[in-house]
Amino acid sequence: MSVKVEHRVHFYETDQMGVVHHANYFRWFELGRVEYLRAIGVTLVELINDNILFPITEIDAKFHAPARYDDLISIETTAVELTKVKLVFDYKISIVGDEKILVTGHSLNVFTDASSGKIIRVPEKYFERFRLI
Amino acid sequence: MSVKVEHRVHFYETDQMGVVHHANYFRWFELGRVEYLRAIGVTLVELINDNILFPITEIDAKFHAPARYDDLISIETTAVELTKVKLVFDYKISIVGDEKILVTGHSLNVFTDASSGKIIRVPEKYFERFRLI
Amino acid sequence: MSVKVEHRVHFYETDQMGVVHHANYFRWFELGRVEYLRAIGVTLVELINDNILFPITEIDAKFHAPARYDDLISIETTAVELTKVKLVFDYKISIVGDEKILVTGHSLNVFTDASSGKIIRVPEKYFERFRLI
Amino acid sequence: MSVKVEHRVHFYETDQMGVVHHANYFRWFELGRVEYLRAIGVTLVELINDNILFPITEIDAKFHAPARYDDLISIETTAVELTKVKLVFDYKISIVGDEKILVTGHSLNVFTDASSGKIIRVPEKYFERFRLI
Repeated sequence: MSVKVEHRVHFYETDQMGVVHHANYFRWFELGRVEYLRAIGVTLVELINDNILFPITEIDAKFHAPARYDDLISIETTAVELTKVKLVFDYKISIVGDEKILVTGHSLNVFTDASSGKIIRVPEKYFERFRLI
Repeated sequence: MSVKVEHRVHFYETDQMGVVHHANYFRWFELGRVEYLRAIGVTLVELINDNILFPITEIDAKFHAPARYDDLISIETTAVELTKVKLVFDYKISIVGDEKILVTGHSLNVFTDASSGKIIRVPEKYFERFRLI
Repeated sequence: MSVKVEHRVHFYETDQMGVVHHANYFRWFELGRVEYLRAIGVTLVELINDNILFPITEIDAKFHAPARYDDLISIETTAVELTKVKLVFDYKISIVGDEKILVTGHSLNVFTDASSGKIIRVPEKYFERFRLI
Repeated sequence: MSVKVEHRVHFYETDQMGVVHHANYFRWFELGRVEYLRAIGVTLVELINDNILFPITEIDAKFHAPARYDDLISIETTAVELTKVKLVFDYKISIVGDEKILVTGHSLNVFTDASSGKIIRVPEKYFERFRLI
């Protein structure tokens, strides 16, 4: 399954080269990940309340063309693998109405116990929702 | 008392106008505030461990001239009033070696209980250090 | 006239205190300002193409209560004064569906020539639109 | 050759999980890249004045352990390949005085003409300095 979310590029996301600073694409991947999880009924607030964190352990991006101020972009997030121990997502960022892909990315999150920091398996209730992908 | 701290302007702090985005000055005021408190022996970590937060309740800035990429700036923080219930600071930002003031600012923090969110008075041990200003 | 724009609070806008970092409110004021100007037919791109910049010269905020992760906030921007030489705006930030005001603010922008940096008057075509407030 | 630069973790670089938000590591890689180039006599300002941009086209990171507020971190940048058309760097982030690696990364920049956006070869004067690695 893929989930798309739109985002208007803000002035404060540009840099002196006149385009979006590349660190922002990682923030937008996060935005895509959050909306993907919301679409299958999982919110960060519920996870946090269950004392579960899900830190990023690996992420990468390829930048094909820059987004610019005031562009309305689409962040398309695809779940590659959602298991009891990890979340793997792919991302594609483009301008709404334009097929050209600006940025692609890939990330890996693991689940950890918020208190101990150790890697854990999420409870069954989450895994049921992960099967929805 | 005044405390000066230096900061090199990063590329990611600029925007499309070719100068520093104005929201960054508020981050630099924070940097100045932190170093001021460190100079009188108060760290955020100690406050947090004592279950004390110190949210900003008012802040303002006047922008006279922009800082630019790679400028080495000086953030001069002056305590106006440090009491058991609040911290009031003034800020002056300039380029190191240049008397011209780029930005001035003023802030008010109060102390709150991290659990209840209510305004509190800090314990005497902090207030002793506040008298050092 | 007032213009409202909504914004979902992102995880990357929070800090270790568990609430939105205060510097973000200045970014959201910018977002409000941009949408206000768009509502009266003025875009930053047109201004930039006309070699006009409009740097912030003064800004302030009062923080009454914090916004939190995933809050859907409303940024209400009111033009106080739009003239040939300056833009003055007031801001109110609240959670959508809740009357409580979290943050209020006020800003002053002036118009400058992008090449010389000198303060200028905007051309009549802009001022006509400013009268719409 | 490797170049190390130190950075104090700011409060505004943390997020609600109580650690540094991962997007910041990409900003710190940039900081490392800038200081590496400065060490071999290349500044972004000179490149920009020569109408040369050097956008990031690929970047990745692995996060082994989080940096925290007020940590003094070391960003170690190693040039893997500096040619007339591209810059390839590796990064290692650790806490000063601690051998444990928190984050590793890898990036690819290409040189482009600032006006046309096309990939170009940098002038010989830069390449001479690139040989210093």
